[in-house]
Amino acid sequence: MILRDPVHGLVDFEGDAERVIGPLLATREVQRLRRIRQLGLTSLVFPGAEHSRFAHAVGAAHVMTRLFSRLRAIENALPIEHRLDAEGMRDALAAALLHDLGHGPFSHLFEEVQPGDRHHEDWTVDAIRDPGTDVHRALEGISSGMATRVADMLRGRHRLRYLARAVSGTLDVDRADYLLRDSHMTGVRYGLYDLDWLLRALGFGEVAGEWVLAVEGRKGLPPIESFFLGRHFMYQQVYHHKATRAAEALIRGLFARAGELVREGRAPERLPPALASAAQGATVSLGDYLDLDDAALLSCFSSWEKSDDAVLADLAARLRVRRLPKTLPLPTEADRDASGTRGANDTEEVGALDAVWRECERRAREVATRAGLRADLEVRLDVAEDTPYDEPSEPTAEGLWVLIRHRAPQRLGDASFLLGELRGKTVRVPRLLFPAELREPILSALEDLLPA
Amino acid sequence: MILRDPVHGLVDFEGDAERVIGPLLATREVQRLRRIRQLGLTSLVFPGAEHSRFAHAVGAAHVMTRLFSRLRAIENALPIEHRLDAEGMRDALAAALLHDLGHGPFSHLFEEVQPGDRHHEDWTVDAIRDPGTDVHRALEGISSGMATRVADMLRGRHRLRYLARAVSGTLDVDRADYLLRDSHMTGVRYGLYDLDWLLRALGFGEVAGEWVLAVEGRKGLPPIESFFLGRHFMYQQVYHHKATRAAEALIRGLFARAGELVREGRAPERLPPALASAAQGATVSLGDYLDLDDAALLSCFSSWEKSDDAVLADLAARLRVRRLPKTLPLPTEADRDASGTRGANDTEEVGALDAVWRECERRAREVATRAGLRADLEVRLDVAEDTPYDEPSEPTAEGLWVLIRHRAPQRLGDASFLLGELRGKTVRVPRLLFPAELREPILSALEDLLPA
Amino acid sequence: MILRDPVHGLVDFEGDAERVIGPLLATREVQRLRRIRQLGLTSLVFPGAEHSRFAHAVGAAHVMTRLFSRLRAIENALPIEHRLDAEGMRDALAAALLHDLGHGPFSHLFEEVQPGDRHHEDWTVDAIRDPGTDVHRALEGISSGMATRVADMLRGRHRLRYLARAVSGTLDVDRADYLLRDSHMTGVRYGLYDLDWLLRALGFGEVAGEWVLAVEGRKGLPPIESFFLGRHFMYQQVYHHKATRAAEALIRGLFARAGELVREGRAPERLPPALASAAQGATVSLGDYLDLDDAALLSCFSSWEKSDDAVLADLAARLRVRRLPKTLPLPTEADRDASGTRGANDTEEVGALDAVWRECERRAREVATRAGLRADLEVRLDVAEDTPYDEPSEPTAEGLWVLIRHRAPQRLGDASFLLGELRGKTVRVPRLLFPAELREPILSALEDLLPA
Amino acid sequence: MILRDPVHGLVDFEGDAERVIGPLLATREVQRLRRIRQLGLTSLVFPGAEHSRFAHAVGAAHVMTRLFSRLRAIENALPIEHRLDAEGMRDALAAALLHDLGHGPFSHLFEEVQPGDRHHEDWTVDAIRDPGTDVHRALEGISSGMATRVADMLRGRHRLRYLARAVSGTLDVDRADYLLRDSHMTGVRYGLYDLDWLLRALGFGEVAGEWVLAVEGRKGLPPIESFFLGRHFMYQQVYHHKATRAAEALIRGLFARAGELVREGRAPERLPPALASAAQGATVSLGDYLDLDDAALLSCFSSWEKSDDAVLADLAARLRVRRLPKTLPLPTEADRDASGTRGANDTEEVGALDAVWRECERRAREVATRAGLRADLEVRLDVAEDTPYDEPSEPTAEGLWVLIRHRAPQRLGDASFLLGELRGKTVRVPRLLFPAELREPILSALEDLLPA
Repeated sequence: MILRDPVHGLVDFEGDAERVIGPLLATREVQRLRRIRQLGLTSLVFPGAEHSRFAHAVGAAHVMTRLFSRLRAIENALPIEHRLDAEGMRDALAAALLHDLGHGPFSHLFEEVQPGDRHHEDWTVDAIRDPGTDVHRALEGISSGMATRVADMLRGRHRLRYLARAVSGTLDVDRADYLLRDSHMTGVRYGLYDLDWLLRALGFGEVAGEWVLAVEGRKGLPPIESFFLGRHFMYQQVYHHKATRAAEALIRGLFARAGELVREGRAPERLPPALASAAQGATVSLGDYLDLDDAALLSCFSSWEKSDDAVLADLAARLRVRRLPKTLPLPTEADRDASGTRGANDTEEVGALDAVWRECERRAREVATRAGLRADLEVRLDVAEDTPYDEPSEPTAEGLWVLIRHRAPQRLGDASFLLGELRGKTVRVPRLLFPAELREPILSALEDLLPA
Repeated sequence: MILRDPVHGLVDFEGDAERVIGPLLATREVQRLRRIRQLGLTSLVFPGAEHSRFAHAVGAAHVMTRLFSRLRAIENALPIEHRLDAEGMRDALAAALLHDLGHGPFSHLFEEVQPGDRHHEDWTVDAIRDPGTDVHRALEGISSGMATRVADMLRGRHRLRYLARAVSGTLDVDRADYLLRDSHMTGVRYGLYDLDWLLRALGFGEVAGEWVLAVEGRKGLPPIESFFLGRHFMYQQVYHHKATRAAEALIRGLFARAGELVREGRAPERLPPALASAAQGATVSLGDYLDLDDAALLSCFSSWEKSDDAVLADLAARLRVRRLPKTLPLPTEADRDASGTRGANDTEEVGALDAVWRECERRAREVATRAGLRADLEVRLDVAEDTPYDEPSEPTAEGLWVLIRHRAPQRLGDASFLLGELRGKTVRVPRLLFPAELREPILSALEDLLPA
Repeated sequence: MILRDPVHGLVDFEGDAERVIGPLLATREVQRLRRIRQLGLTSLVFPGAEHSRFAHAVGAAHVMTRLFSRLRAIENALPIEHRLDAEGMRDALAAALLHDLGHGPFSHLFEEVQPGDRHHEDWTVDAIRDPGTDVHRALEGISSGMATRVADMLRGRHRLRYLARAVSGTLDVDRADYLLRDSHMTGVRYGLYDLDWLLRALGFGEVAGEWVLAVEGRKGLPPIESFFLGRHFMYQQVYHHKATRAAEALIRGLFARAGELVREGRAPERLPPALASAAQGATVSLGDYLDLDDAALLSCFSSWEKSDDAVLADLAARLRVRRLPKTLPLPTEADRDASGTRGANDTEEVGALDAVWRECERRAREVATRAGLRADLEVRLDVAEDTPYDEPSEPTAEGLWVLIRHRAPQRLGDASFLLGELRGKTVRVPRLLFPAELREPILSALEDLLPA
Repeated sequence: MILRDPVHGLVDFEGDAERVIGPLLATREVQRLRRIRQLGLTSLVFPGAEHSRFAHAVGAAHVMTRLFSRLRAIENALPIEHRLDAEGMRDALAAALLHDLGHGPFSHLFEEVQPGDRHHEDWTVDAIRDPGTDVHRALEGISSGMATRVADMLRGRHRLRYLARAVSGTLDVDRADYLLRDSHMTGVRYGLYDLDWLLRALGFGEVAGEWVLAVEGRKGLPPIESFFLGRHFMYQQVYHHKATRAAEALIRGLFARAGELVREGRAPERLPPALASAAQGATVSLGDYLDLDDAALLSCFSSWEKSDDAVLADLAARLRVRRLPKTLPLPTEADRDASGTRGANDTEEVGALDAVWRECERRAREVATRAGLRADLEVRLDVAEDTPYDEPSEPTAEGLWVLIRHRAPQRLGDASFLLGELRGKTVRVPRLLFPAELREPILSALEDLLPA
């Protein structure tokens, strides 16, 4: 199979192991990913970002095939039993393609309303293991036991651990594809690190008694540095964009209000069974969960515009015509002391800021309540956090390593000037979200808390 | 307003005329375009081609703003009353943004089942003129009479005719954006002509007593040649791709079967009202029409998989898991005589080929009928046609012209070697579509008609 | 060895056969190519086009390595003795790297002044065969007899003929690289065909009893069509650009005047020995020829600005500050009859045009002579010709073929609508070149011959 | 004038102020820049990096025209007398085009051997001010006094100081072009920040009583962050690449040996007068300096291969066939303590490292001397330094500022998490350079000083 892709160009699944791709693509569960946008509501802000999780899944599988080529080129460094073999390739390719199978629409928002803190990763594993799914049958049809192996791999367990890490780790095919794809599609090009060079820079090293993929030499540093910096840029510009966060707040409001109505016995029309179960605190069945897709939720929201519950109808209408909450930036470390304390990660200081933010939220909710609004649904404190580069403090195979000829492997943060400086540092962007019409009274109420 | 776009990069609506963009984007009808993919089923073949008509509409408006800059730079050539003015800019920008407003999902397929041959252009004009739409109100809110002016412009009528042609003509902002966008998103890069240079190559000339935008000098030829060649490549590779055509045949089958069921009084579940009206030969209302979007049709097809009508259920299931009809290329002029007759457009010859194609369809339908299938729904002759460059034979303002200093304007086909050679020539790609399981018997039945 | 390249990105010479690259790069003759610009004077018009033949040579070798991958993937179609082997790879890689070794600065201009019509290809073969060159020693150091094999391959002779054709044929690694590189560097993007897809589209077929590389199926047509169209665009826009042609006319004048001075015994200062020999009709030695590079010629031209021969000094000064001859487009077939004769290639018509062009040159030279100028050095008729796609009329292995399953190979011009229409057609761009100051009198003298 | 450029695409000098470009391009001094490669010896490592300072100069002027558009869009923020006017535009455009006029081949290497520490900036100003140059005449021909104004602007002095800073400052058109161009041409894409967005992000603010160009709001941070990070990557990967540094060491050796020979009265053949004067400690004349270009130096080095001075001949031969010195990385802060001291800029520590490096050089020179080589010419300690982002500690108009609505301007390092973390930090890359044949004995001699 040969495909064209806006991000990777020619995508070629033609080898032996690649035969797993066809049967998996033909499953109902994988085709469902065509109906779930990778970036959820982000296309409200970046109109080009309409790509689906399906396109990303294909892209991740493609990156895996490219990784295979690199692994072949460097396998001499490995004892034979650790080398890539046919089964390992099939498992890894399937895992790469299926890694996001359990994503629903706006998936982390749905995770919040489900009982029991089920993450999309859990749904992925369920869909693979459940003997009733197409995808399970397709995997078992390829090789007996494969469904279990792939599910395990997605949890980090595999005979070839470096392969499992390449499916899901600090530097994995998931991130490798989505950084490029999201950068490309949003039109924000900050995540466009150099994939060719990154792959070419990989070698095998032994760390803590385990074979790991590591960066070969100092000339492999730039692609990996720009991978992490690109990720940071994407968080700042896209994933944590104020309008995306504001739209998510609207959805949170819709889910919360719908849940209340369900529990009051006034379930809104067209409510998908998965949401109904979740609202009642019941376990969501796999079938119901997989029936959720963007189309299902959007047509549901659309019908809610005509709901006889005014709160629900209003929230739905606002989403539909993109009338989003306003965002107000709250004070940060940088504002507190522009002369140097910044980045000190002084716990006391940060604690103090947290209190200020909560106070801002409290006062704004008072304003909303006085205005006759449901303050808990309409006013929210939103703190977006990103740690551009983190590194285990102990030398472990989980971390990233740099191989330098004639020396012991170095930790990436030691070898890279940039990542060394950023290591473990966190940036937080605090905002207050509220309906546009409350802007003036809220600004007045917070005047003494905001920077001059 | 500033946006990012994967195709155009920075998209900036910041001038005076650009103020029309905000209110129009906030309308229900424009937001609906987010839920209609530009290329319909093409993402089944090119997974990246998931962009919506909304992204395209924004792109077309952006190209219009870029055209404005060029028009400003060359306006000295025009009498003052023909120059671009504020109203003209607003009208043209609105028309560019709204030009596809009336597209539905898989729109030309729906056009076929509607009574009275209504095209998406008619729906666009209706949506703009109907006083009940958000978009009508937004236009009239900007300037009284604007709805009418914009609707007229979309039909080619405007005080500044060259502007109307730039909205909808041989070389218009619609094509200018979609060639780039579709090329980019499919990952097929053949449509990537040079927009900067194309715009820079435009000047004003007088043809048949009318001011027209024309190509300035021979060095403006390459971008316009590659515009038309790019369009041809896109037709060959994407718009007429065999799998896209095959998927469209499935949808035709679904519409046809659903229509039959409606007329038999067994209307399938969840049938959108627009489809129901069309099936009964009744006029489709604007409201019902605008309720159609990809989500609506896809969830409708999805529920039909469980229909108690076996034919409908089977067609729906095949679309869902992408089990498309097989395509068989039929003989062409080139096969008939590989030594030179090609391109002769010899009417007799073509007539003979037409008869061969119809005979192929007839025999294949016999095979299908013998196999117990609904031959009319399952077997189709499909002839894709493209004329890469056509030119009016009379000198008229509709055609494209080249301005050469100190001479009268030349027709583009006279000035361009490439387009001159292609002028008026048509390529036809005939195929037979049928269910995969009939491949062997159909090949046998056609043996004497297919090339050796 | 790994390199970075603006055109190909990561360039990797790491396989076994690639070991030939290192020793060849370290030769004096290959390093000399760094001092010869690929496009000669074109950077006077396209300032970015400053790339050297060295960069192109590396690029051509890279394309060869990519072709190897494709050949490996399709070799099952071949009898074992025709398959790519280690020696074939080394020969082909060396030939790709060395194919332009014999280019001098402005090489076809130098070819014109040499006795005996020696082309750069002859110098290439000489440099490889001469036991005194580094490159000869390097080749023989790799494998005995290799110098002869590589020289033969560059003349189209090799045990694996499809490999020799890939080094030098209609569709070879030379063109494959230079179209991309020249497009990229000039900033004119018309030559940017899709190399990935072109390679992927190649298969082996048997034509006239010989194994040839051919296009696999109709979906391989677009990259090859855009390869030929891209080449045509580059000819129209870059290689035949009027200012490039004008600058070449200046160099012709310089060579001609210097030759006269040599023959008069007044050889100008710093004249490179190769030019001196050529002017005297003597054979140019390989050593003298290889001493020519851009630096040598440019510093020679630079010192001629101070020559006591006024004609030579004036020509040199004009080149230095880019005061180029004017170009006047002469009438073409299209001008003669804009209504359809175009492209008829009617011999009589073309003959008539030729006569008109020569008459234009004759009259303009009269004007120049009257103005006291050396008319033969200063006024020239310049007819640039390009045949975008030509095809042998007999079925032969030289031509390009398309493989269609279950059928005999088709000629490319039969399978491709575009190339079929263009097949064998030639475009000619006639211009008159003369000093700017003669513009008015020359226009007057030609008035009745130029189109209205 | 319209040009095409591999980096910027369409380059258009068509406004009123742009009329200065034509006459300046036609000068001998600007045309000379075509013969000086922007990156000197870098094309030995990155074969594509063959672009000249001419192409860069045109690019810098183009970025200036793009800056003009932005300045027009934001000028309402300025008092009228500070706004861009026609004279300011002409001055700035000329300064942008001419800013590198005084660069010679391998210019900082030549600076080292000249008496009196003359930098290329001094030569630029001299060439502009000298009434004997074409460029001076061209400037005065455009507007009287313009030569002085442009020369002053290049030294940071102009009525519109923000314009002078845009010609030569932390964020200027020089860097803006060269980062993009060098990234593009080397094929290393790390310097490809987003110029469109960077320009769009600029606004006017008042700092320390002066109007400065500053970043508008937090959404302007990413392009400027990636500008500085891109610059850092380019230093790490290209400008400080070990092979470039090694080639520079060879040139240093050539200059040093030639100087010795001059002072011994044995000046080598073809020595350019500028080098001769410099070697004797005499002032170099402007004319002699401007006669230096790549062609002049390369043909000089080429003739030195046959010098009767064995040292000079050997150095010249090694450069010609690219037999560069070996580089050995010396211990850094990171090696000393991989667990956290890194980046502490602990003066004591760094002092200690300096001593280690000098000791390495001392021992290696002993080895070279014992081997009969000229140790001072052949063995060098080379410490490449880069400070990715520095910021004045006092609030001054020299620094970069961020404008945040309703607040005082913030320093860039306070507003940007990334630049805040990097502010003032320096990375040093210490290497020892020596002839390849000394590798083993030098490694032995340094064993106790190198990291395990």
